[in-house]
Amino acid sequence: MKSQITNALSDFFFEYETPRQVLVRNRRVGVVCRLIQLGVLAYIIGWVFIYEKGYQSTDTAVSSVFTKMKGVGYTNVSGRETVWDVADYVFPSQGDASFVVMTNFIITEGQKMGTCPELPGKHTCSSNADCKGGSFKRTGHGQMTGVCVNATKTCEVLTWLDMSISPPIQQSKIKTNYFKTQIIFSLYYKLVFGLLRSNLVEGIDGLYISKCLYDPADAPLCPIFKLGDIVKLSGFSFEKIAKEGGAIGIVVDWTCNLDVHIKHCKPEYSFHGLYGNANEMDEVRTSMGYNFRYAKHYIENGVSKRTLLKVFGIRFDIIVKSLARKFDIIPTLTAIGSGVGIFGVATVVCDLVLLYLLPKREFYKNMKFKYTDTEVQVRSDVLLLFGFKHKMAAGRHPTSD
Amino acid sequence: MKSQITNALSDFFFEYETPRQVLVRNRRVGVVCRLIQLGVLAYIIGWVFIYEKGYQSTDTAVSSVFTKMKGVGYTNVSGRETVWDVADYVFPSQGDASFVVMTNFIITEGQKMGTCPELPGKHTCSSNADCKGGSFKRTGHGQMTGVCVNATKTCEVLTWLDMSISPPIQQSKIKTNYFKTQIIFSLYYKLVFGLLRSNLVEGIDGLYISKCLYDPADAPLCPIFKLGDIVKLSGFSFEKIAKEGGAIGIVVDWTCNLDVHIKHCKPEYSFHGLYGNANEMDEVRTSMGYNFRYAKHYIENGVSKRTLLKVFGIRFDIIVKSLARKFDIIPTLTAIGSGVGIFGVATVVCDLVLLYLLPKREFYKNMKFKYTDTEVQVRSDVLLLFGFKHKMAAGRHPTSD
Amino acid sequence: MKSQITNALSDFFFEYETPRQVLVRNRRVGVVCRLIQLGVLAYIIGWVFIYEKGYQSTDTAVSSVFTKMKGVGYTNVSGRETVWDVADYVFPSQGDASFVVMTNFIITEGQKMGTCPELPGKHTCSSNADCKGGSFKRTGHGQMTGVCVNATKTCEVLTWLDMSISPPIQQSKIKTNYFKTQIIFSLYYKLVFGLLRSNLVEGIDGLYISKCLYDPADAPLCPIFKLGDIVKLSGFSFEKIAKEGGAIGIVVDWTCNLDVHIKHCKPEYSFHGLYGNANEMDEVRTSMGYNFRYAKHYIENGVSKRTLLKVFGIRFDIIVKSLARKFDIIPTLTAIGSGVGIFGVATVVCDLVLLYLLPKREFYKNMKFKYTDTEVQVRSDVLLLFGFKHKMAAGRHPTSD
Repeated sequence: MKSQITNALSDFFFEYETPRQVLVRNRRVGVVCRLIQLGVLAYIIGWVFIYEKGYQSTDTAVSSVFTKMKGVGYTNVSGRETVWDVADYVFPSQGDASFVVMTNFIITEGQKMGTCPELPGKHTCSSNADCKGGSFKRTGHGQMTGVCVNATKTCEVLTWLDMSISPPIQQSKIKTNYFKTQIIFSLYYKLVFGLLRSNLVEGIDGLYISKCLYDPADAPLCPIFKLGDIVKLSGFSFEKIAKEGGAIGIVVDWTCNLDVHIKHCKPEYSFHGLYGNANEMDEVRTSMGYNFRYAKHYIENGVSKRTLLKVFGIRFDIIVKSLARKFDIIPTLTAIGSGVGIFGVATVVCDLVLLYLLPKREFYKNMKFKYTDTEVQVRSDVLLLFGFKHKMAAGRHPTSD
Repeated sequence: MKSQITNALSDFFFEYETPRQVLVRNRRVGVVCRLIQLGVLAYIIGWVFIYEKGYQSTDTAVSSVFTKMKGVGYTNVSGRETVWDVADYVFPSQGDASFVVMTNFIITEGQKMGTCPELPGKHTCSSNADCKGGSFKRTGHGQMTGVCVNATKTCEVLTWLDMSISPPIQQSKIKTNYFKTQIIFSLYYKLVFGLLRSNLVEGIDGLYISKCLYDPADAPLCPIFKLGDIVKLSGFSFEKIAKEGGAIGIVVDWTCNLDVHIKHCKPEYSFHGLYGNANEMDEVRTSMGYNFRYAKHYIENGVSKRTLLKVFGIRFDIIVKSLARKFDIIPTLTAIGSGVGIFGVATVVCDLVLLYLLPKREFYKNMKFKYTDTEVQVRSDVLLLFGFKHKMAAGRHPTSD
Repeated sequence: MKSQITNALSDFFFEYETPRQVLVRNRRVGVVCRLIQLGVLAYIIGWVFIYEKGYQSTDTAVSSVFTKMKGVGYTNVSGRETVWDVADYVFPSQGDASFVVMTNFIITEGQKMGTCPELPGKHTCSSNADCKGGSFKRTGHGQMTGVCVNATKTCEVLTWLDMSISPPIQQSKIKTNYFKTQIIFSLYYKLVFGLLRSNLVEGIDGLYISKCLYDPADAPLCPIFKLGDIVKLSGFSFEKIAKEGGAIGIVVDWTCNLDVHIKHCKPEYSFHGLYGNANEMDEVRTSMGYNFRYAKHYIENGVSKRTLLKVFGIRFDIIVKSLARKFDIIPTLTAIGSGVGIFGVATVVCDLVLLYLLPKREFYKNMKFKYTDTEVQVRSDVLLLFGFKHKMAAGRHPTSD
């Protein structure tokens, strides 16, 4: 038993199996197949490894974005001058990755709850029966009371009233306002492969930041942006987007190769107009800008009141895109392994040429295959023997073609 | 030297190595192994390439989501009628991907800072010594002043007071309110492989949007949703979630094959009840709904006041899931290469059968291996010779089994 | 025709090709190559499959995060005591994944719009000509009116005024406030591979939550955190960050193996100081904390007023990192396939040793290759024959080395 195991182990460890190869000395096949093999090698080394970095594995980052705005805006509404600062025109205030800069608004101050007739047009009535009390209309502004107002021939609704106009109506005055230049300050961190990295990379310090302004060519790493520049880089017209509102995506691209020094890992900013303006998508689809309703509630003399703002503005979405690559043995060996497999395919292709296309394919077939079927093998040997003898007698080598 | 290099190059380029194969003509082994090989081929072509699209590489999108709500709600609290519109019941106002629709609330108006005794129960005291001034209790409502109030036998705290009730107490009246149907309008963009795509796909334009309403079967691409429909599709009961609050995730799934025309790249909406209601998770764990405290501060007659709302509502999280696939030469060749490797495994399995299981395994072993050990090789040759002669003499082919 | 197809099919299905192998019985080569092959096998099974779980494919989760804070803060400003609760110090109120806890502030109450001279320093003037009406300065506080105020020799600006001080100035009093302990309650869901999973895992129910407090060692799954603990775990000094503000990232790591029972899929919390304090990054770069401006607008006696807060606080970003792994046939077979390819590389290496480095390399070359060039083949055969005869005559085996 023990000697059986020893023999088996000895057989296993002291033997080495190597495939027996047929060495075809044929110029045409040789050149073609060598070129195919070199091609596969070039693909594996050149493309998979060097160009596509197939020896690296990837990871994405988790990130956190903070923003801060500076600057003021000014409006003159019917002689009433107002200055708007950051606390007034940025929604929300705390500096998220997604925020709106108000550039235009319709303001209705001091609204209080009450009843008034609907706007003419969609909710006409001739008698109270046409106005179903306690219900809503999809495009209505409030809940219907069940009364049909004679003066306007529209249903009466319970809603927020604009007290500054008499008699009270639903809509208020439109005021157009534009804001001057503002500056966004962005600072954020990303966590990838356990590393913490900020967009304040080497060379970007407090001193640089206090003076710099982002420029795609001259200052591509400065995290301070002028609002007008961002709008222009995103392809929008400032006048149009300021009036109707719109949305711009600021994509911060971190594509880093962690096999080199970390200082080469720098962000790239790009600006995309997402929504609003007359770009190709909106021409086809909707052309409304970006707006939302915002109210500031308070109590005045015991009465619940609110100031309603229909805010038109530019919505910014700071989106962090990240990809980090680092050397990893597994993708490396997978690439090598499947590359060897492709070599196998190259061999199959060359074999097909050898065994089916060349003039001497029968000869090569007999060289390549050893038959377990005796008759076939004998026939093969005889052929080879006669083939050799014949050619040798004629003084020619079998491979001279 | 030069001739040496020339010879070496000539040897390299004009030669072609092909493995010498043994062609076993055995019906059983042949069929089994061909079936295994065809199986591997079917796996590679059918499953890896066609079904799992192994020839494509993937990318995910960065996206931006905007939402807008329409519709009003109505409450009647102790005879006081109020209509709530978008500016009143959506938090936050600016149309983010994550927002809350208030469906129920507890309101305390006109609170002002002052001292009052704690609610009975957790903070009982018999003398001032029991109330440590300047400290907090984990479940308390304010900072203790150090006084024990005789009337209630609870510690006095400094906190926001509800002035509408006398004597002032901490809690206020519970008012239940339900909101009628609201409609959410969603519009967003995604950026993938450098492409910009909106969920306003072909066929969805301004006209369609003004009329349509989302339905999983009839209008699966309409980006307008009825609140009640979303709640139902997520598996929640509207009454329960409106009262206690809850959370619903709207997953927008973009799974696109970029090898076909972009018009086939369309979003799929699905609704998931995340939190709230009596679903299986909450029955086991907590059963509280979703709520938060919100205050509107203002100054009245020089006094700082605030209106406190404990807001119960449905929180919506619009989550974009995306996967884009596109043809790429590297995954294609990796799949082919490792497929060739699997063929190698198939060959190993068949060899094992041939060399260890079949009756004529010794014969096949001798056919397959060429021994460098002369004695062994001679023995092998002799065996083969005698084996052949014997079988030929008997008129039988070695392979008739 | 039919018999041709029958013959072809019969040839195809009833034959089996296996590579002919040369069995080299050489102790050194055998041991070395077997070790290399065992090494490759150990790599594939041990590292690729077991350690790196190469048989699994991965998926990431989409998640939704809700937070809730409890606790109060207390400030005493010039004798005026105020208690701050959740509705006062958390921005925003609705419990997002990203929120700010106010720890310090500068408050200016009852601001109203008006003109006043700029702060001395940057905007000095000697006459009205120096102050360009209708324009802004980048570091200014409002729009210039065009008037140079004699008393301060600075330009007059239109801006929000602090009415509590006479004459009105731009800045207000600095008040430092610290908040006591607060508690954050987090609860969220994640969707992966179609599964819904909450961080209220097995064993975490309503009863446990009402009592527990997160501790990295004792209660790593309790989703209730003490603010001071989070600050400490992130490496910040509470005093410093409370005063200047800062940002902390709470990373919730879900790395799950879905081949085992789902109950092993649990979250891991880690805390990262992102911004603020004197950590290594900020020492080099900027050292400002985290703050933003926030205003509460209201109308008093018909006049638009606002209370401005410069909020310093700790910004929390709850970031969900997720990776789920599950058995998949494709990565399994890809790993096997390319592993077979690596075996091929091992064979190439051993062949190189055999054919170019060993003393008997000519012998092995002749064993391995079958030449289609007749002359070469005859020479090879003769060499082998004489080599054998010679060695046999000398009573030595060819392989005794």
